Amino acid sequence: MNLAAQVQERSDPSAALEPLLRLVHDEMGEVNNIILSQARSDVALIPELARHLINSGGKRLRPMLTIGAAKMCGYEGTGHIMLAASVEFMHTATLLHDDVVDESDMRRGKKSARMLWGNQASVLVGDFLLGQAFRMMVDVGSLGALKVLSEASSVIAEGEVWQLAASKNLATTEEEYLNVIISKTAALFAAAAEIGAILTNRGPEEQAALRLYGTNIGLAFQLIDDALDYSGEAASLGKCVGDDFREGKITLPVVLSYRRGTPEERAFWRRTLQEGAIEDGDLEHAIQIMRRHNAIEETIQRAVYYGKEAREALAIFPAGEARKALIDAVDFSIARMH
Amino acid sequence: MNLAAQVQERSDPSAALEPLLRLVHDEMGEVNNIILSQARSDVALIPELARHLINSGGKRLRPMLTIGAAKMCGYEGTGHIMLAASVEFMHTATLLHDDVVDESDMRRGKKSARMLWGNQASVLVGDFLLGQAFRMMVDVGSLGALKVLSEASSVIAEGEVWQLAASKNLATTEEEYLNVIISKTAALFAAAAEIGAILTNRGPEEQAALRLYGTNIGLAFQLIDDALDYSGEAASLGKCVGDDFREGKITLPVVLSYRRGTPEERAFWRRTLQEGAIEDGDLEHAIQIMRRHNAIEETIQRAVYYGKEAREALAIFPAGEARKALIDAVDFSIARMH
Repeated sequence: MNLAAQVQERSDPSAALEPLLRLVHDEMGEVNNIILSQARSDVALIPELARHLINSGGKRLRPMLTIGAAKMCGYEGTGHIMLAASVEFMHTATLLHDDVVDESDMRRGKKSARMLWGNQASVLVGDFLLGQAFRMMVDVGSLGALKVLSEASSVIAEGEVWQLAASKNLATTEEEYLNVIISKTAALFAAAAEIGAILTNRGPEEQAALRLYGTNIGLAFQLIDDALDYSGEAASLGKCVGDDFREGKITLPVVLSYRRGTPEERAFWRRTLQEGAIEDGDLEHAIQIMRRHNAIEETIQRAVYYGKEAREALAIFPAGEARKALIDAVDFSIARMH
Repeated sequence: MNLAAQVQERSDPSAALEPLLRLVHDEMGEVNNIILSQARSDVALIPELARHLINSGGKRLRPMLTIGAAKMCGYEGTGHIMLAASVEFMHTATLLHDDVVDESDMRRGKKSARMLWGNQASVLVGDFLLGQAFRMMVDVGSLGALKVLSEASSVIAEGEVWQLAASKNLATTEEEYLNVIISKTAALFAAAAEIGAILTNRGPEEQAALRLYGTNIGLAFQLIDDALDYSGEAASLGKCVGDDFREGKITLPVVLSYRRGTPEERAFWRRTLQEGAIEDGDLEHAIQIMRRHNAIEETIQRAVYYGKEAREALAIFPAGEARKALIDAVDFSIARMH
């Protein structure tokens, strides 16, 4: 059985998230209340649009990592709640701006905010949520957490600009691609986990370990996302198969296929992704080429590798419910293939 | 002589800015260096676009207020430099996003960044600059300054969303309009000035006084901007006369004219601003209607009033070079009419 099939074989991939969901259940209730109250405004458009996003079925994996990491480090205060809400707001702001930049029509199986309220509102409400995220961080008062999250904020935007500048560029190397997703996706996972150690004044070793855990789970998460976009299993993610293809995004399955491609295949990629001249049947053809070069399978393999790195990074923490929950969450981000 | 003519009579309005320019000269040199170094990135698009904005001839009034206020409060550290650069980055990020939202072609007499690099890059580089602004604030380490600036960040975005939601709405009242510009423009001026008192641990009275000064100079600044958009004198501002009109923006001169308008005039405003059906000669006709109702003149009168409030707010500080420079800066923001 090949790896993709193995990963897809699990009957219920979200079972791997159960231990983390249980661990952070009470705190996430409070996080959700804070998210709703911080999205309030006299300007009706703000809570309307924010509620659309908040209720759109995201799993809130990033804030759960913050709560889980803080608990694993023995945190007993309340700051992790507010910081977790900040992390989710940063993520939501990024989604809003991403959809504008990518001209996406759908988000998690629903119409994207920009399709319902327009690009202008999406840009500005994203700015508002980012501002609220920083206000909450300031309220917690940890300069260490502020440092990590503000750096993440810059790095995410930098990664997005890089991706924009490199969009439709088939000469993108695997290394370059990994650098982009380290910035645009893994940086927020890394920061979300790391602040658990910061809140508890753990030493630099624990802080670095949680950062490594977050970076690697983020990489695994993004690579599975990339693979899903070319697999029949994407519906469960609320994603339309072929979104990346239609937007001309150069993701790892494309990088691998192009590198190994025949002259005819390269011409196909140039026509579809670079020139955007996509015809009926092209997506199916793209998937065929990827299968021929084992590109989807190898993208998953790399995700599995980063997943292993993520799990190993937690070895320095004492065994227990929290560590197990964070380790199982890695399996979840990979098992989403199903 | 009417008030507009009086204000316009000054032979060199920027002379009023000279004392502040002199006061903050050395520090602003350092602010400019930090601005350039913090706009660096391996992603070439970022420094390219940032340099376009940085060199586009803005007066950097906001960071000058931070430096000036800190000096008036006797500050002797270096944190004001970094905070002033943060303030300018927040402002620049707002301009980038504003131009996308307003679909503006020009900014300070040059092509806007979105016309040169596209909306997508403008959104993302704006996000990057905002992230960098927060990183710098965190480096300074003043939670008080972080609180004031992060609140401003939310409030500015909230004001922009309000303006978007109310755009083309001729039922906007004067009070509603003032609330919008208190948020979208005056909030950053207020924060910029207030952090001067925070850095020096001045009491709540000095802090409130500087905040009041900033709010009022910001209001004066915005109202003069609104008036300039319907006057022949706008070229000196690098603004095209009629930009607000063409974008259907409801500013104070419009609010006053609509309120006092005949049925025919109201129909004219509905056709041009609400429906966007603008024909040749409409801008000239709009200016005629405004003159008939004294709307531009009264907008300037209100700016003069807020300017007076700004000056008076500084009464609790000791007389001296810094206070005089900040007071004269108020005259500058009003004298821009010329």
